[in-house]
Amino acid sequence: GGNIANGEALTKKYNCASCHGADFTKSTDPSYPKLAGQHAEYLKHALIAYKRGEGPNGRNNAIMGGFAKPLSNKEIDDIAAYLHSLPSGLVLQR
Amino acid sequence: GGNIANGEALTKKYNCASCHGADFTKSTDPSYPKLAGQHAEYLKHALIAYKRGEGPNGRNNAIMGGFAKPLSNKEIDDIAAYLHSLPSGLVLQR
Repeated sequence: GGNIANGEALTKKYNCASCHGADFTKSTDPSYPKLAGQHAEYLKHALIAYKRGEGPNGRNNAIMGGFAKPLSNKEIDDIAAYLHSLPSGLVLQR
Repeated sequence: GGNIANGEALTKKYNCASCHGADFTKSTDPSYPKLAGQHAEYLKHALIAYKRGEGPNGRNNAIMGGFAKPLSNKEIDDIAAYLHSLPSGLVLQR
């Protein structure tokens, strides 16, 4: 698992909340996903795909590509661990 | 907004639950995202990106590309409306 504290610092450095919302549960536009509590493995998969850009298993996105391409795999692990750890403002119903 | 009933029928036709989980809250592998309750606009954005595949604003993914490429934009609207409508097994904490 990644380092949650470093993941938090990285999300501040990259200002992720400016689109994905202050608590990562309410994004600023419905075209941006809710991230808080999402699977860490999926978040890593997505960031690696944005880092790849064009090509197999890539995601070609001007906004997220710009943020993901400078990230090391360790930084991606840390960001994923942090976002997964966040309370989503939601609790299990049962 | 899309047609929720048709979206439900499409998710059954394409067997989305086989990876994303029976109720779309617990995917069968942590590398697959939780979808229930996600923003409909984001779900549409993601499916359209998988449909595009290579190129700007595309996502190149062998599994999701195969499912998304045959979908019409209307079908994508319907699937997004259905998944967004689903109770996530989660409720607001406050």
